[in-house]
Amino acid sequence: MTDLIYEQPLNEKIRSYLRLENLSRQLQNNTQQDQHHQCFYPLFSLAELTERCDYRGEVLKDIDRQIQQLTQISCLAGSDSEQVDQIIQQLNTLKLPLLTPQRIGCDLKQDKFITALRQRFNMTGAPCNFDLPQLHFWLGQPWEQRQQDIQNWLAQFEPLLAPILLLLELCRKSAEFSQMHAKAGFYHGDTQQALSLIRVKINASQHCYPTISGHKNRYAIHFVDFNLHRHTSSTIEFSLATCS
Amino acid sequence: MTDLIYEQPLNEKIRSYLRLENLSRQLQNNTQQDQHHQCFYPLFSLAELTERCDYRGEVLKDIDRQIQQLTQISCLAGSDSEQVDQIIQQLNTLKLPLLTPQRIGCDLKQDKFITALRQRFNMTGAPCNFDLPQLHFWLGQPWEQRQQDIQNWLAQFEPLLAPILLLLELCRKSAEFSQMHAKAGFYHGDTQQALSLIRVKINASQHCYPTISGHKNRYAIHFVDFNLHRHTSSTIEFSLATCS
Repeated sequence: MTDLIYEQPLNEKIRSYLRLENLSRQLQNNTQQDQHHQCFYPLFSLAELTERCDYRGEVLKDIDRQIQQLTQISCLAGSDSEQVDQIIQQLNTLKLPLLTPQRIGCDLKQDKFITALRQRFNMTGAPCNFDLPQLHFWLGQPWEQRQQDIQNWLAQFEPLLAPILLLLELCRKSAEFSQMHAKAGFYHGDTQQALSLIRVKINASQHCYPTISGHKNRYAIHFVDFNLHRHTSSTIEFSLATCS
Repeated sequence: MTDLIYEQPLNEKIRSYLRLENLSRQLQNNTQQDQHHQCFYPLFSLAELTERCDYRGEVLKDIDRQIQQLTQISCLAGSDSEQVDQIIQQLNTLKLPLLTPQRIGCDLKQDKFITALRQRFNMTGAPCNFDLPQLHFWLGQPWEQRQQDIQNWLAQFEPLLAPILLLLELCRKSAEFSQMHAKAGFYHGDTQQALSLIRVKINASQHCYPTISGHKNRYAIHFVDFNLHRHTSSTIEFSLATCS
C-alpha cells in the first residue's frame, strides 16, 4: 500500500497558501482531463478567496525574505551555489507580475458567462441544464476549446499561484523526514525554532490517519483508526518533517 | 457540431425529478471513473434534497397514475401491448422499495465518515488534506474499494432514483420532436393539454442556447447568442417536443 503524506499548517499564511495550492492543482487537473462542469468548483473557490483577501503583499514580503535568506546561503556556499542562485532568479522573476495595480482575478469578475454561473452554482442540486442553459451550451463545445477556456481562467491566477507554489516547495524542502513511533497512537514535540508546517508520512496499511494540532513551537499528533473512527491504541510507525 | 437538448420543467415536480436525475447521473459517472473527491458533491446534494423533502408519496402517486394510463392503453392496443405490459410490470416492481417505513438516505446520515465530510465540504477552498485527513486516507485507498463505497452510497438512493428515471423516460417519450423556426430568435406556443416538460433540440453550430419559460398551457422560448450574451435577432432552426 502507498505512503500518504498529511500536512498541517501551523500559521494562517501557510494555511491560505495550502488552500490556494490545492485549488491550483485541482484546476490544473481540469485543464488536462475533461471533467465536465467540475472545473468550476475550484475556479469559483479561487475567485472567492482572492476577492476576500489580496494575498499579493504577503507573497511579496515572503519572496523578499526568501531571497535574503538564499543570498546569505549563496555567499556562504560559494561554488555550490548555482542551484540557489537559480531559485533567487526564479523568485525575482515571479515578483514582477505581482506588482501590477490590477487585482488578481478581476478580469474574471467582468466575464458575463462566469458571473452567471457563479450565482447559481451553490444551489443544491445545481447545475441542471434548465438552471444554466449557457453552461449546457459550453459543455457541448469541443474539449480543445473548453480546455483553452479553463487555461485562460487559470492563467489569471498564475501571478499569485506560481510564487505560492514555489514558496511552499521551499518550505517543504526546509526539513527532511525522520522515522518516528507514536506510542499508543500519540506523538508530540516542541522546538525553539518557529515552525510553519508539519508533515506526516504514513503507510496506508496501518489504517490510520493523523490529526495534527499545534502552533509554531509545539505540536501534537493523534492517530485515528479509519474504520473505528477513534483514536488508535497501537504503536504507529511514521515519518515526520517539521518545516520552518 | 452536435445537437444539444435543453429541457425546461413546467412544474415543481418535474423540476425536482430532473434535479435528482442529474445528480444520479453525476454520481453514476463517479462510480465508473475515478474523479477523486468529486463524487461527494452530487452525493451531498442528493442527501440534502431528500432530507428537505420526502419524495416517496409523490413518486408513488405518479407510478399509480402511469400504471392506470398504461393499463387503458394496453386494453386498447390488444396484441401490440407487450411492451406496455412490461413497463407496467417494471413500475409495479419499483413501488415495493418505496413502501418501507425507513426514509431514503437515512443510513447515510448515520455514517460517521460521511457526516464529518459533509460538515466541511461547503467551506470555500475545502477540502484540503488538513481539513479532512480522513478524506485524504480514503482517497489513498485502491480505486476498486472506493468504487464499491460510492456504489453503496448511491444504492441507498436507488429506491427513489430508479422510478424517477423511468417516469422521466415515459414523460420524454410522450412527445416526438418537430422541426420549428424561431423568427428573430423567439418562439411561443400554447396548448389545451397540460404540459410538464419542454424539450428543445438545437445544433450547436448556431451558437445559441434557449431560455425557456412557461407554465402548463403556455410557453415562450428566447434564443440567446452565446458569444454576445444577448437575444439573437436571427431566425433559429430547432426541434421542439412538448411533453405531458
